[in-house]
Amino acid sequence: MKKIIYLITLLMLIFGDAYAQNLKNLSTIDPEEHKIISSDRADGRYVSSRGVVQYMMRNIQPQLAFNPKFSKEEFKEWQTEVRTKIEELMRFPEVPPQPLPKLLSKKKRDGYTLEKWEIYPQPGSVVPFLMLIPDGISAENPAPAVLSFCGSTRTKESTAGVDELNPLFLKEKHYDNNRMAMFYAENGFVSVVLDNPGIGETSDLEKYGRAPAYDRDTFSRYLLDMGWSYLGLSAFQGQQIFKWMKSLDFIDNSRIAISGHSLGTEPLMVLAVLNPDIHAIVFNDFMCRTIKRATVETKPTETGVRPAANWLGHCVPGLWNWFDYPDIVASLAPRPLILTEGGAVADLDLIKYAYKIMDGEENISIYHYPKYQDPKNRLHDYEFIPEGLDMDEYFQYVNVDVPNHYFKSEVAVPWLKNIFNVVP
Amino acid sequence: MKKIIYLITLLMLIFGDAYAQNLKNLSTIDPEEHKIISSDRADGRYVSSRGVVQYMMRNIQPQLAFNPKFSKEEFKEWQTEVRTKIEELMRFPEVPPQPLPKLLSKKKRDGYTLEKWEIYPQPGSVVPFLMLIPDGISAENPAPAVLSFCGSTRTKESTAGVDELNPLFLKEKHYDNNRMAMFYAENGFVSVVLDNPGIGETSDLEKYGRAPAYDRDTFSRYLLDMGWSYLGLSAFQGQQIFKWMKSLDFIDNSRIAISGHSLGTEPLMVLAVLNPDIHAIVFNDFMCRTIKRATVETKPTETGVRPAANWLGHCVPGLWNWFDYPDIVASLAPRPLILTEGGAVADLDLIKYAYKIMDGEENISIYHYPKYQDPKNRLHDYEFIPEGLDMDEYFQYVNVDVPNHYFKSEVAVPWLKNIFNVVP
Repeated sequence: MKKIIYLITLLMLIFGDAYAQNLKNLSTIDPEEHKIISSDRADGRYVSSRGVVQYMMRNIQPQLAFNPKFSKEEFKEWQTEVRTKIEELMRFPEVPPQPLPKLLSKKKRDGYTLEKWEIYPQPGSVVPFLMLIPDGISAENPAPAVLSFCGSTRTKESTAGVDELNPLFLKEKHYDNNRMAMFYAENGFVSVVLDNPGIGETSDLEKYGRAPAYDRDTFSRYLLDMGWSYLGLSAFQGQQIFKWMKSLDFIDNSRIAISGHSLGTEPLMVLAVLNPDIHAIVFNDFMCRTIKRATVETKPTETGVRPAANWLGHCVPGLWNWFDYPDIVASLAPRPLILTEGGAVADLDLIKYAYKIMDGEENISIYHYPKYQDPKNRLHDYEFIPEGLDMDEYFQYVNVDVPNHYFKSEVAVPWLKNIFNVVP
Repeated sequence: MKKIIYLITLLMLIFGDAYAQNLKNLSTIDPEEHKIISSDRADGRYVSSRGVVQYMMRNIQPQLAFNPKFSKEEFKEWQTEVRTKIEELMRFPEVPPQPLPKLLSKKKRDGYTLEKWEIYPQPGSVVPFLMLIPDGISAENPAPAVLSFCGSTRTKESTAGVDELNPLFLKEKHYDNNRMAMFYAENGFVSVVLDNPGIGETSDLEKYGRAPAYDRDTFSRYLLDMGWSYLGLSAFQGQQIFKWMKSLDFIDNSRIAISGHSLGTEPLMVLAVLNPDIHAIVFNDFMCRTIKRATVETKPTETGVRPAANWLGHCVPGLWNWFDYPDIVASLAPRPLILTEGGAVADLDLIKYAYKIMDGEENISIYHYPKYQDPKNRLHDYEFIPEGLDMDEYFQYVNVDVPNHYFKSEVAVPWLKNIFNVVP
């Protein structure tokens, strides 16, 4: 049977390609010719709705953008405004009292204990999470802690380095590198990790065959219709866990960090902004302006399709009116922050500038992808990013080495140990 | 060459089907078994995020739902609240003064003149539209008017019964029936029609080959990120045209109607709510609760995929917190209203009840699809709509005869002529 499937697949690839080739001959466009969305009218107005939206995107001025001319006092006022606005945009629900989190199981592993818990963030909801507790800590000898947010479709189990609950959840690529929560535990941190909504244990029917291809679009959309968002849900669940972590006597509340890989950097930003008592932030993704990215990625395929927006879980309605990611991260100054996968150098320098204003220059560390760590290898530092790019071209402008996107424990963990004075 | 394509297509269909069949054998589920999203926990809580969202959808209570116990005074207060909230949700931009609309061309046709205009609703934007002006009208002899909103991917040209600007824009199915704007002109109305955003003349690269398959998801998404929405944009463009129509001396401002087919019923609802000086409303689609529909359409395919949400242009973030479509339409009482394609009878009766409260029972007309006009043929009137349906099953519950979804000129036009005292 398997051979037949392979044969059919092969035939489909061959015929499919020929078929696509023929379709292409029927109607293709020159991507170069159409890569910039432009108007041929004397008044510059757009008849195409896509053009009108592009015009709006080019001209949007986020009202709470970071201003490098801020005095320290102005910065603090602005920081509060950012916090208030993020709180508003996240629309965390007011919930009646819920049961306390419950310990489900515990298991000794080398150097730490793995506990599985569940928390009840809102009516109808239970969120499982893992807590890895290093040996030898207690109320008398509390440890620093890290709350970790996984990459997009990576489970809490793989992030903690334990077996998947279902073999279908496994993603082999960079599996070892992405055991973020495990690395923290091995290095003396109480390490807590939850799933992104809809992933792994929190998925729906995907465990019956489709995982790790998850449908998060449908419920993300319904959340929007209900005035919420995927990020709001994700951050809210993290927030409830963070609050609970602070109640544990073996955690040193003056040393709680947050760590996010890839998609996980989004709830990370939200929680870091909302909670000044998060004392260090590990941001493991490249830094860029999402508005700019959406505005420049306009180069169509030969069949006339421009790059799609990222998936709906990234959408927080109206966020672009207020700030972009570099502004949000700049507002964290002067709290200890590491960015481990570089990004647009102009934006990174802007964030550094915020730390300078707040006298926290020693609190920010920035690493690039190894490939781009040497400025000589960066092709477009400080270059204006033009419209008309496809995704790959855009990534070149912001120094992203796509195949090597993984949790950079080698820089993140030593940095965090140093910040929190964890003796090896 | 064409023969080769056909051959390849045929082979792909054969092999593709065999391939899908094999995949199916590898991992399929029983749709019946999983059609209801349920929790197997004693506390009824959901681990799956899709389950949590389902729980929220089941329990949402729109704050401005129509209450059939309203007194006339309470109804009027509520009606104002609905208007204020719709205004808030639509987020029409404040724009600096724009140039006046411009006449581009005019052409005499049998019984009326076809004019093409363009309007400048906001900076960067120009929106073309058609106006059909019946013979013999003037400032001394003004005519009633109708502003029409097309079905989803139907152009203003086809809706006005004129040649497509590009043969690719043509949709043959129900072409004749959907010439809504033409029918109104032929019957003595000044008839104005614009494209839905991103369709036909307002599309992007689709004219080079993909039309009538349009990409509206990407720009709809960016509109959300900017705090707006596809419906907001669409309604705003219609609103600017409506305002301008009122300035024309050959239009009788006491007899302006609005007419929408399918997707067009959404901007129709918005404009009708916002403008009490729209004097009659032709709603050409079935009526239902979108929240309920999303909540019951949960039956997965054999490969474990539940029905997707409708496309992103339908999303107005937070709308579900306030009302559903039947509430919005109920708020139009007692203005003349016709619903031409029935829908959920309980919801239609609720709307009728609003008209009763407002002493406008003679102002509302409801027609079902011909197939369901006789109540004997309606399978599920007043029946509770259970969760676990696929789209086709849902349509049975709300009396939708999908293949016959088109503009019902045969009931809409005579009704409107009667309302506005138009002599044949």
